[in-house]
Amino acid sequence: MVVVMSPDATDEQIAHVVERVESVGGEAFVSKGVVRTIIGLVGDIDSFHHLNLRTLAGVADVHRISDPYKLVSRQHHPDRSTVWVGPAGHQVPIGPDTFTFIAGPCAVESKEQTAEASRMAQSAGATIIRGGAFKPRTSPYAFQGLGLAGLEILAGIREATGLPVVTEVVDPRDVPMVAEHVDMLQVGTRNMANFGLLQAVGEAGKPVLLKRGMTATIEEWLMAAEYIAQRGNLDVVLCERGIRTFEPATRNTLDISAVPVVQAASHLPVIVDPSHASGRKDLVVPLSRAAIAVGADGVIVDVHPDPETALCDGPQALLGAELRELAQAVRRLPEVVGRAPAGVLAQRG
Amino acid sequence: MVVVMSPDATDEQIAHVVERVESVGGEAFVSKGVVRTIIGLVGDIDSFHHLNLRTLAGVADVHRISDPYKLVSRQHHPDRSTVWVGPAGHQVPIGPDTFTFIAGPCAVESKEQTAEASRMAQSAGATIIRGGAFKPRTSPYAFQGLGLAGLEILAGIREATGLPVVTEVVDPRDVPMVAEHVDMLQVGTRNMANFGLLQAVGEAGKPVLLKRGMTATIEEWLMAAEYIAQRGNLDVVLCERGIRTFEPATRNTLDISAVPVVQAASHLPVIVDPSHASGRKDLVVPLSRAAIAVGADGVIVDVHPDPETALCDGPQALLGAELRELAQAVRRLPEVVGRAPAGVLAQRG
Amino acid sequence: MVVVMSPDATDEQIAHVVERVESVGGEAFVSKGVVRTIIGLVGDIDSFHHLNLRTLAGVADVHRISDPYKLVSRQHHPDRSTVWVGPAGHQVPIGPDTFTFIAGPCAVESKEQTAEASRMAQSAGATIIRGGAFKPRTSPYAFQGLGLAGLEILAGIREATGLPVVTEVVDPRDVPMVAEHVDMLQVGTRNMANFGLLQAVGEAGKPVLLKRGMTATIEEWLMAAEYIAQRGNLDVVLCERGIRTFEPATRNTLDISAVPVVQAASHLPVIVDPSHASGRKDLVVPLSRAAIAVGADGVIVDVHPDPETALCDGPQALLGAELRELAQAVRRLPEVVGRAPAGVLAQRG
Amino acid sequence: MVVVMSPDATDEQIAHVVERVESVGGEAFVSKGVVRTIIGLVGDIDSFHHLNLRTLAGVADVHRISDPYKLVSRQHHPDRSTVWVGPAGHQVPIGPDTFTFIAGPCAVESKEQTAEASRMAQSAGATIIRGGAFKPRTSPYAFQGLGLAGLEILAGIREATGLPVVTEVVDPRDVPMVAEHVDMLQVGTRNMANFGLLQAVGEAGKPVLLKRGMTATIEEWLMAAEYIAQRGNLDVVLCERGIRTFEPATRNTLDISAVPVVQAASHLPVIVDPSHASGRKDLVVPLSRAAIAVGADGVIVDVHPDPETALCDGPQALLGAELRELAQAVRRLPEVVGRAPAGVLAQRG
Repeated sequence: MVVVMSPDATDEQIAHVVERVESVGGEAFVSKGVVRTIIGLVGDIDSFHHLNLRTLAGVADVHRISDPYKLVSRQHHPDRSTVWVGPAGHQVPIGPDTFTFIAGPCAVESKEQTAEASRMAQSAGATIIRGGAFKPRTSPYAFQGLGLAGLEILAGIREATGLPVVTEVVDPRDVPMVAEHVDMLQVGTRNMANFGLLQAVGEAGKPVLLKRGMTATIEEWLMAAEYIAQRGNLDVVLCERGIRTFEPATRNTLDISAVPVVQAASHLPVIVDPSHASGRKDLVVPLSRAAIAVGADGVIVDVHPDPETALCDGPQALLGAELRELAQAVRRLPEVVGRAPAGVLAQRG
Repeated sequence: MVVVMSPDATDEQIAHVVERVESVGGEAFVSKGVVRTIIGLVGDIDSFHHLNLRTLAGVADVHRISDPYKLVSRQHHPDRSTVWVGPAGHQVPIGPDTFTFIAGPCAVESKEQTAEASRMAQSAGATIIRGGAFKPRTSPYAFQGLGLAGLEILAGIREATGLPVVTEVVDPRDVPMVAEHVDMLQVGTRNMANFGLLQAVGEAGKPVLLKRGMTATIEEWLMAAEYIAQRGNLDVVLCERGIRTFEPATRNTLDISAVPVVQAASHLPVIVDPSHASGRKDLVVPLSRAAIAVGADGVIVDVHPDPETALCDGPQALLGAELRELAQAVRRLPEVVGRAPAGVLAQRG
Repeated sequence: MVVVMSPDATDEQIAHVVERVESVGGEAFVSKGVVRTIIGLVGDIDSFHHLNLRTLAGVADVHRISDPYKLVSRQHHPDRSTVWVGPAGHQVPIGPDTFTFIAGPCAVESKEQTAEASRMAQSAGATIIRGGAFKPRTSPYAFQGLGLAGLEILAGIREATGLPVVTEVVDPRDVPMVAEHVDMLQVGTRNMANFGLLQAVGEAGKPVLLKRGMTATIEEWLMAAEYIAQRGNLDVVLCERGIRTFEPATRNTLDISAVPVVQAASHLPVIVDPSHASGRKDLVVPLSRAAIAVGADGVIVDVHPDPETALCDGPQALLGAELRELAQAVRRLPEVVGRAPAGVLAQRG
Repeated sequence: MVVVMSPDATDEQIAHVVERVESVGGEAFVSKGVVRTIIGLVGDIDSFHHLNLRTLAGVADVHRISDPYKLVSRQHHPDRSTVWVGPAGHQVPIGPDTFTFIAGPCAVESKEQTAEASRMAQSAGATIIRGGAFKPRTSPYAFQGLGLAGLEILAGIREATGLPVVTEVVDPRDVPMVAEHVDMLQVGTRNMANFGLLQAVGEAGKPVLLKRGMTATIEEWLMAAEYIAQRGNLDVVLCERGIRTFEPATRNTLDISAVPVVQAASHLPVIVDPSHASGRKDLVVPLSRAAIAVGADGVIVDVHPDPETALCDGPQALLGAELRELAQAVRRLPEVVGRAPAGVLAQRG
């Protein structure tokens, strides 16, 4: 940490800062400039936080200079991690060596629609199935998901296809029930800062897919992952899904740079959701290609057998020619950037 | 709703849209232009949503033209509402005729600190006390609040001062316990789209202070209020607390225009939180003055007897000269814009 | 400046940074922490910029700690400035002791419309008239202003009313001609970073009204003022006119906090444009009230005798009851916050 | 256009809207709903703009439903265009069939540095050289470019390498001089809405590289291109260079989705600038890969022989291993997505 004193700070004020820092066992290095004095702090950063240095007389600003996250940081864990999803013997990797394609319907609407969408996803090369049983919707008048009935449909799909399934959980009270039915728990964009939920999924014993808050900085996103990791669960896959900007042409703005930025800062895998980022079916294929090329560890995409009747996000669901084009990109492009497609692999070890 | 067809839409595609609209009991008015055809929809808007009109062939765009919220809209409830906070016989109003000053410590840290901050608040003219027992923090390593012990401290303050108390609730499981100890439940900015929590406070039987999500549009904010109202609770007070923008000089950007915009769209009261919006103590007084002048129904402000030792948001807490200046503004300015200060009033009716 | 080394920086890399700093006459204070080393730089900040410290091996980050602007900074000029607008003997002040009301038509459309709008403005209490002869428009198909003919109309208004006139200039080539016809040159939001134009108005010998870029930080805005000041012109009035955010309810989001933030950082006067910020006539009066209460040195407002036929920004122009309400606010509120209304004053000195 | 009346609009108000529309030769189709009436407008949209419909009594909102740009729209020009850069016989295409790599120093600092950077660029496969002689800088104390001397250096480079050169022009007065020395005129991000400059380059007889304003919507960007096209110059190449968002990890947020969005809306070519978007050298290669994969028609990248001494944007300039990696991506990836690398081609026709 660096404390910047205001130009008119007195020697007493500078001494008071030094004293406070030393009172919690830190060291303070004072550099007196022509205009300002700056004080470099060395020691345990968490203890410095409690000092409220910004409130001290004469202090103009405080700059933090190290990352506030630890367990998910790449600093002490330089190798990038692989997260394995699915039951022993049928695990699918998400990590630096492979490219994982996750697909399925936005919402589980019925057994038939989910089965058909999953079949489409599997044919296109998906090795993990997605589908929502609990849907957080902006409007209380919109379809909110089938709940437990949806989870049971997903468990059936998992059995029928042999593929692992990921679904969103929105309430900490539902975590055990959801964890019982699926292989991976998704925390959605609106819940990225729902700390009670983060802690609950951290204790559930299943891998977590943590979507970026649509208005969260990358640092806040990694702090959310740290909440999960703190409860003992390091099997966290990050998912960039677009951020809110002033541009109205797309629902959100896919922050493609977030992929290499996260990979430099954290050892956790990071995938991309082009469907929810753009909200436009015609952009899903080009954005998926961009995700592969930028080095993402996977993509997650909405498919639907009949978007016209979809109860949720129909306008972004793929089918037909576009899905075939995506399948082809997912089959060919990863190799060009040095990755293997992620099939169902034998158990680790 | 208005459906805009693409320039190359065929007559069959136009007919298909009309047919779908009529299939749910709506009427469709077709206007053929030189370049494009537009179709005006008349009928129940909720039924139209299920049609996924945006996915139909030939459709370029769909414009919604009415508000998606109903219970909180001013359209069918033209008079602005007053929400009464506190036990029968000691209720404080928040509404169009008065200006309500809410103050207290950001976090409840101890009995003494809370008592002292509440005494400061009351002396400065506050008629409702704020204080946080559950603190949602970006970092899992930061102080998370005292929980139940904090609620008990707040219940003591309420008895000692005779003033109603508002506190934040972050988990739906805690709602009954929190509602038992305080007079008003706060939903914080990070939980504005936590729909399970919104529904839980909607059923708690106490007024709700709903902060705007720091990245929520006004419409999304009103939709969140609609979630609460739908559960039978119309005693919702909205609180503008700054939105996330590119400007780094303040923690968030106080959207002062939101006050008159909300008042035109909804009958619910709306107050302003200048402390969390700016994160800077030196801006709290000028922003509070602006809030009064723009027509807000109240302000909510952090005070702390010793900001240097505060466990949360010390840099924005007022004391001493600044608090006196605020007290003076709250005493004098509301009258100039035609409002009475909101003291503890006798029961309604 | 503070240089933060990466955790794995070598002693040689640290020594190289020190050597480069010393090579331009600076001093470098090294603080070795457990994880990182930080280096505090003391000396001439401009010489440090040329070192490209961020590109040196082992450097993780560089924090600037002093303001990059000088002439407009309050640091060496603690008293807030007053800018006087108009011909000798008829100057109107804009500064900390007064509140200045500027009004007029968005665009000069004809002699009659401009005369009528100016009469409305003057009756409402305006002491400076605004009106646009050059209109930068997003669409090349929209009305672009009358140009020289518009300037001549404005010069006539100036004579008829006895009030100073401000108008926008958009091209450096037009500066001398515009300066000949009016009393104050406006640089619009789209041209805030048009450095050639800034330099040209800096040499024109007339006060400048510098609107904030709709997407400029406050620091960038002050740097734009510095460009003008560098050419010898310190008669710059800053104008907050809303910034671009994700909120669609208003055209832009009025950053009301910018007023006290600028007043703390710079000695220049700062006024508010509620008409262009909101784009909504119904918000102009409440936002003007907020501007007065927050401590702005003035407001600038669009009026039009017949908004229905206005060639530019009709939806935000005031007339009738709303203009009377604004006139009343401008007459009464400034006094409550300790300011005198700014009439036409006798020459300084 | 669609006019939405407010719920309490009277029949007279509806009739008045219809009458105004018909007064300029348009047709108005009235659809009366249960709550609201909507009026569809058919006819010349430009004439409707002058009606100020939003100011009429009873009007709640006005929706525009067609694109406001014409010459650059893909609607009447479905085939995507190729822009040819350079002298007859040595023209380089930028368009849908090729992938064009543009590189060079951010700023022209000296003959030697420019020559060396150009040599690096050419070796890496660049077929157009970039380099800045006029540098718009946020700070008036930063290096502003060599001006004419820089143009002469660029003209020498053009001769020595045989490659076309692109450089930025910032002032309309400089356009003829710049056009004389180089092959393509760049309009920078800060000048995207400098309409006088857009018109000047529209008349200069050379292709234009139009960077997106860092805070411009895609529609505003295309309107800026329309300004150029209106002056008879359709040789405009659009360049996405990042937009301003709340995310601080990168200088701006590269809006990769803008590439397919623009290609769907306009026939003009669109390229990507990953250097200025991110401001980070370590992101240039992954973002260039993403640009190729998403379907961009080219990239423009900063290279510098010695970033440590660069006078402008050193931290983002490539050299050594990273430049070789970029060269490889540019050589291999375009083919995978169906494009040829753009060498110097024989004259068209």
